[in-house]
Amino acid sequence: MSLWCDEVNDHVSRFGLKIHKTLFHTRSPFQDILVVETDLLGRALMLDGMWMTAEGDEKSYHEMLVHPALCTAPHIARILVIGGGDGGTVREVLKYPEVQQVDLVEIDELVVQACQQHLPSIGTAWHDPRLTLTIADGIEWVKTTKPGTYDIILVDGSDPKGPAVGLFDHAFYEACARALTPHGIFVSQAESPVLMQDVHIDMVQALQKAFGHAYPYYGTVMIYPGGLWSWIYAARTTQPTDLKAERVARITETTEIWNKAIHHGAFAVPNRLQQALQRS
Amino acid sequence: MSLWCDEVNDHVSRFGLKIHKTLFHTRSPFQDILVVETDLLGRALMLDGMWMTAEGDEKSYHEMLVHPALCTAPHIARILVIGGGDGGTVREVLKYPEVQQVDLVEIDELVVQACQQHLPSIGTAWHDPRLTLTIADGIEWVKTTKPGTYDIILVDGSDPKGPAVGLFDHAFYEACARALTPHGIFVSQAESPVLMQDVHIDMVQALQKAFGHAYPYYGTVMIYPGGLWSWIYAARTTQPTDLKAERVARITETTEIWNKAIHHGAFAVPNRLQQALQRS
Repeated sequence: MSLWCDEVNDHVSRFGLKIHKTLFHTRSPFQDILVVETDLLGRALMLDGMWMTAEGDEKSYHEMLVHPALCTAPHIARILVIGGGDGGTVREVLKYPEVQQVDLVEIDELVVQACQQHLPSIGTAWHDPRLTLTIADGIEWVKTTKPGTYDIILVDGSDPKGPAVGLFDHAFYEACARALTPHGIFVSQAESPVLMQDVHIDMVQALQKAFGHAYPYYGTVMIYPGGLWSWIYAARTTQPTDLKAERVARITETTEIWNKAIHHGAFAVPNRLQQALQRS
Repeated sequence: MSLWCDEVNDHVSRFGLKIHKTLFHTRSPFQDILVVETDLLGRALMLDGMWMTAEGDEKSYHEMLVHPALCTAPHIARILVIGGGDGGTVREVLKYPEVQQVDLVEIDELVVQACQQHLPSIGTAWHDPRLTLTIADGIEWVKTTKPGTYDIILVDGSDPKGPAVGLFDHAFYEACARALTPHGIFVSQAESPVLMQDVHIDMVQALQKAFGHAYPYYGTVMIYPGGLWSWIYAARTTQPTDLKAERVARITETTEIWNKAIHHGAFAVPNRLQQALQRS
């Protein structure tokens, strides 16, 4: 007997993994939470029927979300992570000894509990004393943050449906710009540039407005719809090319995907997206 | 009612497209051939249960196979394409006015017929007078080719199962090296570097032996297993960085994915693959 667990996208495509066990399944006030054991990628988390992370694939997402900002920012003492309840993003952030404080603000306590219990290989930094976990709405958190508080804000949220909708909003980006120092960097996952091209392009434009500069970048994440995934790096003064060689050398000792060449290559924009961005 | 057509990989993962029509389905002496009409990607071809090409995704594969070689080779008059029965690769090759002769050698006549009839939007260059289609085994063809015949050889074959097995073989690469001019370039699709990492690494090594230099490169192809796909560029003298600016400018007017930045970025090797290549 084969048990398959599929993410179905807009009723037209699906990516499925064979599973041999359901480890956890519940409904939180926010979403359906499912942790399964897959044959191919180890344990995997699905929220509302969408693959979020899997042990065998998570580095292709978390490394790309974290290291472009952390390897280019002039200061990386104070970091805010919104979402990211699986703990993979803060694990990558906390690899840097320069980081003094990480605020992880996740809206859904049950996601954190499910991941702490069933995905311990992803969230390996929960006990780092520099980390403060707060269960709260990240949008409200940013609104009430004192201006200039953070060196970096990383948004590790899900698709613009349900609780994550406000993470794709101009007012939220403006609030993030205020919460950052003048040399601060904002990075967010930015959806599939193929299957959700409109959302992706709207985000680039809104972040350009909020920060002056926004640089989309791309990589492959097997479990996300379409395979090609995107992030956006937005900053008032810093550029993605401002790599700090010493940090790059140190972090590259630990990464599975990210390195200097991957970093520069990720900012190459496919031709039809370049045209769509210029038209918009 | 929903009809799904899935490629299942090693019984552990699957990528499916919703279909609303089967246009063609037969068994050739070589393989099972299926053309379906999908909701997401238009018409799509499946061979032996593996997605080969789809109207809405094919450029992410064909442009990456063709333009790295065609934009760096000193001469591009005589081109051999092995496989590629859908016609997408020769369509990209024949965009270059410098190309004088293209030999397309495809083993399965029924694939060509199915594609000519049902995927005419992919194979738009079948009537170009510079193109000669031969139904034959590409491995035999290369063995009996006069040394120094071709400027470029492109291998657009399927996975190392069934008729394509010999396309992943050291003797075949040696024969290709002989069939090329001294400044010639060989490019082959090189499987998923994640799900078929061993095949990928073996190919890099074998091509390094046959040509002296082999450069793997990477891109996302939605319909292929794992999303991240690979190609290898092998050459005795030419390097992937030897871009001809005029050709790049001309071809970039026509491409949906490939451009100069994508080209350079594609040759970045993810960290764990770099390590696996160094160990091997």
